[in-house]
Amino acid sequence: MSPSKVNSKKVFVDHATEPLVTGPTAYKPDFERYERDWVPLIKSYLAAREEALPKEYLVPSELLPEGDLDTADFDATTVPEKVMDAEDFAITELTATEIAKKIKDKDLTAVKVITAFIKRATIAHQLTNCAMEILFDYGLARAKELDEYYETTGETVGPLHGVPLSLKEHYSFAGRVTHGSYVAALADVTPEFSVTNQIMYDLGCVFYIRTTQPQCLMHLDSYNNITGRGRNPYKLKMSPGGSSSGEGALIGMKGSPLGIGSDIGGSIRTPAAFNGIWGLKPSTKRLSMAGCFFPARDTFAEIIGCVLGPMANSPEDLELFMENYMSLEPWMKDQHCVAMPWKKVESPKPEELTIGICYDDGVVKPHPPNIRALKIVKEKLKAAGVNVVTWEPHKVYEAAEIAANSYTSDGNYAAVTRLAESGEPLAPLTEHYLAMGKGDTGLTTLETQFYNYSREKLRQEYLDLFNSRSVDFVIAPTYVGVAPKPHEVKYWGYTSLWNILDYTCVTFPTGIKADKKLDPEDKEYTPRNEYEDYEYGLYDADAADGLPIGLTLAGRRYTEEAALKASKVIADALAA
Amino acid sequence: MSPSKVNSKKVFVDHATEPLVTGPTAYKPDFERYERDWVPLIKSYLAAREEALPKEYLVPSELLPEGDLDTADFDATTVPEKVMDAEDFAITELTATEIAKKIKDKDLTAVKVITAFIKRATIAHQLTNCAMEILFDYGLARAKELDEYYETTGETVGPLHGVPLSLKEHYSFAGRVTHGSYVAALADVTPEFSVTNQIMYDLGCVFYIRTTQPQCLMHLDSYNNITGRGRNPYKLKMSPGGSSSGEGALIGMKGSPLGIGSDIGGSIRTPAAFNGIWGLKPSTKRLSMAGCFFPARDTFAEIIGCVLGPMANSPEDLELFMENYMSLEPWMKDQHCVAMPWKKVESPKPEELTIGICYDDGVVKPHPPNIRALKIVKEKLKAAGVNVVTWEPHKVYEAAEIAANSYTSDGNYAAVTRLAESGEPLAPLTEHYLAMGKGDTGLTTLETQFYNYSREKLRQEYLDLFNSRSVDFVIAPTYVGVAPKPHEVKYWGYTSLWNILDYTCVTFPTGIKADKKLDPEDKEYTPRNEYEDYEYGLYDADAADGLPIGLTLAGRRYTEEAALKASKVIADALAA
Repeated sequence: MSPSKVNSKKVFVDHATEPLVTGPTAYKPDFERYERDWVPLIKSYLAAREEALPKEYLVPSELLPEGDLDTADFDATTVPEKVMDAEDFAITELTATEIAKKIKDKDLTAVKVITAFIKRATIAHQLTNCAMEILFDYGLARAKELDEYYETTGETVGPLHGVPLSLKEHYSFAGRVTHGSYVAALADVTPEFSVTNQIMYDLGCVFYIRTTQPQCLMHLDSYNNITGRGRNPYKLKMSPGGSSSGEGALIGMKGSPLGIGSDIGGSIRTPAAFNGIWGLKPSTKRLSMAGCFFPARDTFAEIIGCVLGPMANSPEDLELFMENYMSLEPWMKDQHCVAMPWKKVESPKPEELTIGICYDDGVVKPHPPNIRALKIVKEKLKAAGVNVVTWEPHKVYEAAEIAANSYTSDGNYAAVTRLAESGEPLAPLTEHYLAMGKGDTGLTTLETQFYNYSREKLRQEYLDLFNSRSVDFVIAPTYVGVAPKPHEVKYWGYTSLWNILDYTCVTFPTGIKADKKLDPEDKEYTPRNEYEDYEYGLYDADAADGLPIGLTLAGRRYTEEAALKASKVIADALAA
Repeated sequence: MSPSKVNSKKVFVDHATEPLVTGPTAYKPDFERYERDWVPLIKSYLAAREEALPKEYLVPSELLPEGDLDTADFDATTVPEKVMDAEDFAITELTATEIAKKIKDKDLTAVKVITAFIKRATIAHQLTNCAMEILFDYGLARAKELDEYYETTGETVGPLHGVPLSLKEHYSFAGRVTHGSYVAALADVTPEFSVTNQIMYDLGCVFYIRTTQPQCLMHLDSYNNITGRGRNPYKLKMSPGGSSSGEGALIGMKGSPLGIGSDIGGSIRTPAAFNGIWGLKPSTKRLSMAGCFFPARDTFAEIIGCVLGPMANSPEDLELFMENYMSLEPWMKDQHCVAMPWKKVESPKPEELTIGICYDDGVVKPHPPNIRALKIVKEKLKAAGVNVVTWEPHKVYEAAEIAANSYTSDGNYAAVTRLAESGEPLAPLTEHYLAMGKGDTGLTTLETQFYNYSREKLRQEYLDLFNSRSVDFVIAPTYVGVAPKPHEVKYWGYTSLWNILDYTCVTFPTGIKADKKLDPEDKEYTPRNEYEDYEYGLYDADAADGLPIGLTLAGRRYTEEAALKASKVIADALAA
């Protein structure tokens, strides 16, 4: 009487005997087919991007560094002020919250705003290679419509009327190709907006640029076979992080006031930290992922969950995004979202907050700049009246093992299937990702259920620890160091821990920068394990010098409201 | 650099090569070992239960049916009034809400209340075999403490101060054995209350009885090897449903005003429907399951989720339970719970409600009494002003296939491991359960991920349907018929559909009973499939005659607040 036996009608396809397509040891790029069938498509995709870039806004060559931008030891964040006129520059220095208010108050028009951001985004892209697709004409047309609507009706279309919003390419854009950095999807037009894009559209945002992400969306770095690598605004030769690489660089350049990233292992947080901006990684199922590109066509792995979240230049803007987004009840559109309205939460007084500081996760010791920053932050928080305690790490190695096995639980069936459709070559960090956990075989069902169990157990241990230690939030490194060199980052433990726990995270800029004099290399340090041997060894005081240090505030699941309020207390304490 | 390769330290056990212990075709009971090692334990467990039963409250033999209770065509619900004194009887006719108020107002004491319920529960158990463990002395002692506390401090310990609460045995009880109907666990003492038990204790409830459930907790019926079968209060020879069998029968007999059931496929709802009471199956993760007995020791399957929910004799009591439970923030105790406070929701006016009525799920046509009840309910709702539409079923067969495969995704590894520890024989419906889906082999990882995907897709289709049809709730049969004979029910589709969707369900008594004159058998009906051939064929007008008909109101995920308000509108309409 079991359904699969009772009826001859076969409802579903059969995955019982399907062989697992396996990871990097088995995947063989097909260079010939790739060159023949797909490279032309890449070229035409890039030509369209080049075509859409307004040459009149480009940085004149005398303001550019000499030689290859990819190897330039050059701080691009100072360029826009030199190139842009004062009024446009001033507009792009505004927060999204200020922009929304000024448009509503008729101090600015949507066209005026988007024009200024188009100029700055052009500079940002020229310097950092952050754009996957340039939609400036689309943005201008939309802004014009919004202005006309406001003029005619006297009403804004929504609380974010006219606010420019940058979008990682990952999310379906109506009538455009959405490929998730898989070359094989380069001709796949998505007819509708993703649910989240539609919500932001309905709130009045102006879309004008789609930003880059790495191959498979699974590096804490930026390289893909379509647009190549991205560059860090603060030092072009360094990485902008990833996978929301373009968002990080673009918002870091203030070529966008507000954007949306996605994160399953650090993909909002490392670009936020490496580019000196703010990013919120909410707990899963608050923001809709429906209509995002996934390589899987008819399978869904759920040991670990991916999330979307806003990236911006202020905590107020993250709150603006979340509060308005939630007001449109995403759970009535996407069944995967939990029916959890945005809660009104009072700002805590500093003395009402207890924050644990994690100086070391027990697996990889942070690089000297990050430890120095943690100590400064501790002192500033204490000075502001916050209760600060030291957070002893708990089973981070185990969490990293659960995470690694979750990413490749299907033996890379979905990812490798898509890669094989174009035969595209693997980036070094794709090889790293595909080899995580049991990437070559996948998990058995009992192993999957074992990691589910281990994850649940770890979450309970963390909740118990947060309770017994009376800690509201933990401040920890976002990564062991500041922005690294390209193709380098392999240890995700500082971020993937919070994905496994599904904790709310706010990555924030400390205002502190790495300093080769204050943060010398420690050649004497003896690594505790192979992770540390590699990742601690990446520290290069010269390369790190001058790069911003972003830390991450992490709190219990579904504490987005309280975490953003606490973030403001921290921002105030750091500014004091 | 993947965690499983980077370090020789082995953090976790390895489920990669562990052979799947398989389902009914492979499981061989070990009768000799079972008889020798475990039957004595069962006997002593039952002797303790017998010892704890107060003989002075038993029904005198002249009021009992002749012959074996298990085959008696006897309505036991009329017995308590004949046996109990008027005051005790009146107390047991109160709702939990009324009891809480009367104790707070000092119109009643906790001892007075629990004494009355002990008397009625004794009768209920004598007639229906609903008690797994009798804890009347424990309940009396607790009630006495509560009275003294109130007397001394002038304050109640919580909003449910003194309210008797019956508990399915499934939930850990501090210092008692918790076995989940697995014989092999008959000596396993759980040191602490489950999280939910603790919450209810903290709210002031008085525990006094733990109730029965079937083998493996996976029948919509009652048989286990420890206490045998349960009986339906309205006709002893019929089934009380399951798996919250004892709760259904006990509350149906009003031997408890309020109890807690658990449900992964119909286990709150069928006992509610078959015993003429109310039951709420919330969406997953609102009530804590932490500390419930699960056969799995280090694996966690999550294609489908199990939930706890209240069972009672009124919708107000379900609300009383939920609102107070949520006030203690279960998510701060059990990480698995979502941080979703109980929402204040206004009662809708009848004309503000649109309800779809499902007369047939497209797989198994309901038996004649249930179809008649649906039509009466439709007319009464219309008369009350509710908007009523016909709900066309959607992919219920597919939902049943997903559910069946989810129950046995591990190839019965966990259940069969535990069964094998005692070698206990399988009940017929355990064989049915173990054979569901791919019970003999388990799913591959890709199959698991395929069913995850299929479930997500179906949920989206249902949300879209609820939206496009502008339906707030659906009223559907809880099962194809009224209470069936023991060992009969195999089709779970009317309930498991809502588990797969994770929708909120309120099962309610219609006040309508099966009537052999009004509900003749339809011998001409041609079944559409094997499910229907079997399950529709179970209808026996004589056996069904006089049994209560309970239907189920189902709404979108996490609409518990609104569903309970809507339930009251329905209750009022049905009472009119």
